[in-house]
Amino acid sequence: MAAGTAASALPLASAKSKYPIVHHVFFWLKNPGSVEDRDKLVAGVKSLAKIETIKQIHVGIVASTEKRDVVDNSWGVSELMFFADLEGQKTYQDHPIHQEFIKNHSHLWEKVIVYDAVEA
Amino acid sequence: MAAGTAASALPLASAKSKYPIVHHVFFWLKNPGSVEDRDKLVAGVKSLAKIETIKQIHVGIVASTEKRDVVDNSWGVSELMFFADLEGQKTYQDHPIHQEFIKNHSHLWEKVIVYDAVEA
Repeated sequence: MAAGTAASALPLASAKSKYPIVHHVFFWLKNPGSVEDRDKLVAGVKSLAKIETIKQIHVGIVASTEKRDVVDNSWGVSELMFFADLEGQKTYQDHPIHQEFIKNHSHLWEKVIVYDAVEA
Repeated sequence: MAAGTAASALPLASAKSKYPIVHHVFFWLKNPGSVEDRDKLVAGVKSLAKIETIKQIHVGIVASTEKRDVVDNSWGVSELMFFADLEGQKTYQDHPIHQEFIKNHSHLWEKVIVYDAVEA
């Protein structure tokens, strides 16, 4: 069976080799109860997809998994991006679309945590 | 151009629709300076790929991106998994392979943070 087909139970190896830089961002909203603010930020993060060095983007909100001590569910919006290399990530950071996103949306969040990983 | 080809600048939509549950885990090592401990944990997390409800898995270490206030680079190993649904994530949590992983590797970490997201 070809790698990456929906029916395969194996993890998709292609994403590992091609896009090893994984950029995880979690935003805590200034108004955590505001679905309107949350949705504005979701739309803003989605607008970043136009940046050509972003190879995959996933925009999330808190999932209703089991509450456990290790699970942090205090954030509001998540951004997950895959890049081919560190240069691609740097291009994204400096890109006018990203700078415009920060200018137009940073009033919505009070805290951001970023985790930048490279596939092991 | 077909969605998901390497040359496409568009994000891969397939991962969103099929695997909307995103499980981010960050481990802080008890011995942060031990590459041996880090590599043991990396190997342990990779062993989880055998669990059939994990549709994609990415195991990471800290990337050498720019140091910025918002970037947390104090962790040691990251685990990123995609599931088709919440049931798949629950199956993973309770799976004997996962329980075995915890039993054999939990002495390596001093802190874990989990972020569970659903695609927005």
